[in-house]
Amino acid sequence: MGRIADRLAELELELPRPFAPPPGIEFPFDLIKVSGAHAYVSGHLPVNGSEVLVSGRVGEGLDLQQGYEAARLTGLSIFASLEAELGDLDRVGGWVKALGLVQCGSGFDRPPAVINGFTELVLDVWGADAGRHARSAIGAAQLPFDVPVEIEAVVEVAGSR
Amino acid sequence: MGRIADRLAELELELPRPFAPPPGIEFPFDLIKVSGAHAYVSGHLPVNGSEVLVSGRVGEGLDLQQGYEAARLTGLSIFASLEAELGDLDRVGGWVKALGLVQCGSGFDRPPAVINGFTELVLDVWGADAGRHARSAIGAAQLPFDVPVEIEAVVEVAGSR
Amino acid sequence: MGRIADRLAELELELPRPFAPPPGIEFPFDLIKVSGAHAYVSGHLPVNGSEVLVSGRVGEGLDLQQGYEAARLTGLSIFASLEAELGDLDRVGGWVKALGLVQCGSGFDRPPAVINGFTELVLDVWGADAGRHARSAIGAAQLPFDVPVEIEAVVEVAGSR
Repeated sequence: MGRIADRLAELELELPRPFAPPPGIEFPFDLIKVSGAHAYVSGHLPVNGSEVLVSGRVGEGLDLQQGYEAARLTGLSIFASLEAELGDLDRVGGWVKALGLVQCGSGFDRPPAVINGFTELVLDVWGADAGRHARSAIGAAQLPFDVPVEIEAVVEVAGSR
Repeated sequence: MGRIADRLAELELELPRPFAPPPGIEFPFDLIKVSGAHAYVSGHLPVNGSEVLVSGRVGEGLDLQQGYEAARLTGLSIFASLEAELGDLDRVGGWVKALGLVQCGSGFDRPPAVINGFTELVLDVWGADAGRHARSAIGAAQLPFDVPVEIEAVVEVAGSR
Repeated sequence: MGRIADRLAELELELPRPFAPPPGIEFPFDLIKVSGAHAYVSGHLPVNGSEVLVSGRVGEGLDLQQGYEAARLTGLSIFASLEAELGDLDRVGGWVKALGLVQCGSGFDRPPAVINGFTELVLDVWGADAGRHARSAIGAAQLPFDVPVEIEAVVEVAGSR
């Protein structure tokens, strides 16, 4: 097993099934696109396969902790897609950048505290050197399938085309 | 004529005039910026030159099909900018990433189905290999000039500076 | 002094203290992450250290000019972070891309005119060749700490790791 797979096991984290559209629908886009030394990660949601795990607005229906957990689940879905595309998460040599979108209730102005659920997961798994990344966190009017969190990212890929 | 220009003709697609500000105003930014092997595409709108072709909110005034068509028109505007900057669309060797923003009416949670209008156009023209890209689709509170769709992108450029 | 530092002095611009979290909190992310030949700039706000300089919505409480000024202050905060990370702003060889988010009041559809406060500052300091960049400007439902503007960017770094 690879180093990152070992670390996931140590943290007792299990990856969800890869992000998939509902039956009868196909995604016309790639979940991960490798270009040069980087992999570009499509906007992911808190899902297990095609099952949406959390829906609603943070600060209105969902509280900060539930938003944080949704961001963490979104991170696990991203890891699953990276593993499916790259074969081995050890090929993710470093995290570069993330854009985190939070479906907020009126007046909820703490998107960064929500997206910390993703960022802290990445740091736990990859460590401070490889895991730290630039980041933006904003409130979005509306996310797909009414989910509270959507995250896209750029990572460095070792031995890429 | 280049391969992509041929393909556009085959699909009977005509590119709009390049995105331009209203008379008397200048854009202080570049529609396309090439850096290394990539071209970064500024947020484009469904326009022909400076004429806004569609305005309104999807799910409130505009239906899904009208949003889809606006995303497709936004794609054609992006192609026009790329052609103006690169001289020949054949220099776009591959599509890497897109961020699609949809000005949604309250409760409309299908931004991805709208942005498919862009993604499926790219696949039609560039084909599945070069055309497939990572993508995020979100609902934005407000887009410039009240348009329903704004899309930015990153593409691979062959023989770039 | 470097060329850019000279230019800042000539324009009588002083950089704010680097963006910092409120006392007792740590940012789990990097304000700047260098990867390859590029530096990725996290979403910045109009701040001096941890002090938020402007809050509110453009088009509702804040007018266009106040939004423009907030975008300009956000630019100065980005310059401060780049200087802290790179040691010398002359290492920023070119600006590539920016995403500008504007917390808009209902019906305010001129995010680009707000984000011009950032773009025109960059052009003033770096000049037209190195300063011009691709850009998207959108209205966001909600920004952190109720600020009117958040901007993330990508720049080219000379002599990067």
